[in-house]
Amino acid sequence: MKLDYPDIEQIALDQELSISCKDYSLLTDLYQLTMAACYVGEGLEQRQASFELFVRHLPEGFGYLIAMGLEQALDYLEKLRFSPSQISALQATGIFADAPAEFWSLLTEFRFTGDVWAVPEGTAVFANEPILRVEAPLWQAQLVETYLLNTINYQTLIATRAARIRDVAGVQAQLLEFGTRRAFSPQASLWAARAAIAAGFDATSNVLAALKLGCQPSGTMAHSLVMALTATSGSEDDAFMTFHEYFPDSALLIDTYDAIAAAERLAKLVKAGEIQLTGVRLDSGDLVKLSQQVRSLLPDVTIFASGDLDEWKIAELKEKGACIDGYGLGTKLVTGAPANGVYKLVEIDGIPTMKQSLNKVTYPGRKQIFRKFEAGIIQGDRVGLITDSPQAEQPLLQIVFKQGERVQQPEHLNEIRQRTMTAVASLPTETRRLNHPQSPSIEISASLRKLTEKTQRVKTVS
Amino acid sequence: MKLDYPDIEQIALDQELSISCKDYSLLTDLYQLTMAACYVGEGLEQRQASFELFVRHLPEGFGYLIAMGLEQALDYLEKLRFSPSQISALQATGIFADAPAEFWSLLTEFRFTGDVWAVPEGTAVFANEPILRVEAPLWQAQLVETYLLNTINYQTLIATRAARIRDVAGVQAQLLEFGTRRAFSPQASLWAARAAIAAGFDATSNVLAALKLGCQPSGTMAHSLVMALTATSGSEDDAFMTFHEYFPDSALLIDTYDAIAAAERLAKLVKAGEIQLTGVRLDSGDLVKLSQQVRSLLPDVTIFASGDLDEWKIAELKEKGACIDGYGLGTKLVTGAPANGVYKLVEIDGIPTMKQSLNKVTYPGRKQIFRKFEAGIIQGDRVGLITDSPQAEQPLLQIVFKQGERVQQPEHLNEIRQRTMTAVASLPTETRRLNHPQSPSIEISASLRKLTEKTQRVKTVS
Repeated sequence: MKLDYPDIEQIALDQELSISCKDYSLLTDLYQLTMAACYVGEGLEQRQASFELFVRHLPEGFGYLIAMGLEQALDYLEKLRFSPSQISALQATGIFADAPAEFWSLLTEFRFTGDVWAVPEGTAVFANEPILRVEAPLWQAQLVETYLLNTINYQTLIATRAARIRDVAGVQAQLLEFGTRRAFSPQASLWAARAAIAAGFDATSNVLAALKLGCQPSGTMAHSLVMALTATSGSEDDAFMTFHEYFPDSALLIDTYDAIAAAERLAKLVKAGEIQLTGVRLDSGDLVKLSQQVRSLLPDVTIFASGDLDEWKIAELKEKGACIDGYGLGTKLVTGAPANGVYKLVEIDGIPTMKQSLNKVTYPGRKQIFRKFEAGIIQGDRVGLITDSPQAEQPLLQIVFKQGERVQQPEHLNEIRQRTMTAVASLPTETRRLNHPQSPSIEISASLRKLTEKTQRVKTVS
Repeated sequence: MKLDYPDIEQIALDQELSISCKDYSLLTDLYQLTMAACYVGEGLEQRQASFELFVRHLPEGFGYLIAMGLEQALDYLEKLRFSPSQISALQATGIFADAPAEFWSLLTEFRFTGDVWAVPEGTAVFANEPILRVEAPLWQAQLVETYLLNTINYQTLIATRAARIRDVAGVQAQLLEFGTRRAFSPQASLWAARAAIAAGFDATSNVLAALKLGCQPSGTMAHSLVMALTATSGSEDDAFMTFHEYFPDSALLIDTYDAIAAAERLAKLVKAGEIQLTGVRLDSGDLVKLSQQVRSLLPDVTIFASGDLDEWKIAELKEKGACIDGYGLGTKLVTGAPANGVYKLVEIDGIPTMKQSLNKVTYPGRKQIFRKFEAGIIQGDRVGLITDSPQAEQPLLQIVFKQGERVQQPEHLNEIRQRTMTAVASLPTETRRLNHPQSPSIEISASLRKLTEKTQRVKTVS
């Protein structure tokens, strides 16, 4: 009654578990490959299929999502190949023993040849709106599901949080991404840094991410430096002065022992002209009270706060009158419940399809989002078919990949950042607020409603 | 009053944001490098420092943690180097303009030369117990903080969840890791698969992860295959028979339209000898009722369930009498709130240190965990100094890296899996339960208590 267990007697082949883009063809769920083999066997692999990626519901407490991760998705589609050694590894599993021989030649010759439609990175989207559509030969469109969901789910989550945090903190606040130690793998820290900066953050402390993204890394100092210098060479002030000598632009972390005592001593040093202090960081305690006291002691110094912050805590700090100019965000930015994007077949060979499982109904057909603005504010969206015409609305999905080729060059992070800011500014107040936010109204177009009913009926009578 | 903003006008240098172990030296927070430069300037870089990695509190609702990720940590320490191009990139930032020249030669010649003590992967640990200690020249021990926390925080979280799920599901259940599409980056999906299998799962659907780990990948089929084959070639049964022809050992997904109708038709096919069905999967609906009905229709077939499952839902399904033999776990396994490990300086040049910020006190000195068992069950732990002697207790931290060299070969995943099972079996009932679990009592040894008081006093009078 049991299926065979896998054999885990063998030792890991690759202890480091790092990842190169050359690995990505195998970064997929097994069933994508078994289904592909099945399609080949049935001569269906070249049937034209359309899959759409969307979320059924927004994450709890969110009124919108900021789409992100498309760049990594397109880069993946462009480079995707199966090497001879990857094909041998698949064959060696024995799982494909009954698969048709043509399956292997298909993998050998494979490159992604389809079209992709997507909303640009930094666009606000809501539940049941397609973020991306793949139109490609059935087996190709199926194969890429896992990676596309992986990159878009995660970066969209981080971008949305980052946009909310920027919205709450205000345009003047400095927002620093400090999450690497809590990110879910080294690569997750890179993707988090990218999405955070593209959605409004100013910098990341992650050196590798910053260099890869063409940004300057940012950071202050750790408690351990104060502890180490205090233990070996004397006072906390010696630690401050020493670090400041080498990194005069860096903020000093003042709460290792007693933040106010440290600020008082620093105020004297500033007054005496012994230090040109630019910033201090508080990482514990009552940030409202402490920041107010530090501000009165060091009025010309930038005050950074960190320590398990999120958009809620920042809103609370501001409301209570904290004197904080910059925030370092880590854990709450880069981890948590995901944006649960799904990727569903909506059409094959021109025939609309939909999943009709209980409570999981999807809309059939290839769709477009039509967005209506008034004085720059979103009035509502209409989700329709690609054949529908805009009615003084803006269609959001654009073609980004055509017959296997990119339509445009990668965007600058700054362009995406600008688009995100515009997107957030276009949201109604009730969509932006943190407490019980509400998405704008999403209408289903008459033609899509009709097609949905028709597709449902076909299935019911079949 | 503001610090300079970083320049994000430039385009991303590396759009794919993949990661190689050669990148890992820069996968660190900027302050690790600026502090290192400061230590070099002060001639303190070779001072012998000890840092310990631990969690202050267990994640909400957890009674224990299963330590995991050490293998990747050791692999990192072994391979860590700075290449000339990495050093140039750091210099080009301008951040280190006032850093001493010796800093650059230190990076050039760097290899990790310290000792590491750690609990073996698969060990159960509790709050305030060191999972790992690095004893190394100050700057080296500091530099590696970010990566060590990254690997151990994430894999420990996944391993703990996987162990809890195995504990609830029982030894007979098949547990499959399906989380790649929701994992926080491709590399996160690899690390999640490793940690899940090492802590008791049977397999992963992630082909790359399985191959890297030396396991067989596992999976069933997707709704899209049923939809595609139904749309192009006829009935749902045709879809089943077709897939079964190529993958006779694979379970069939039966809930695309109506799970019970599908099971009834499959039962007829089984009876007529037209299909040698091994398994079916349910991904939606009332899993208790559906699985019971499917069991009565297909008594000899393995029933898999999936769809946003976690240990709580599995416990509920079992309590309500669901007939489920295997579970596919994704989102709830691989995402969520992290294990908030921290890495704190506990000694420098033989001088014990502790952070004394409000509510964030740490224990000073190099420590050992002494665990007391009775009839194989943990009676309690005593956290003491390394100079304390065990009192009919088992010391948990072992030396794993000595003067920059691994003390032992990497472990087989199966060894770690076995250790995890033994560890969970050794936990008291109140620690294993899902509802308000309680950790065993953790005692602070007399010598550690004394040292803590002494270190606090020193600081207060200084």
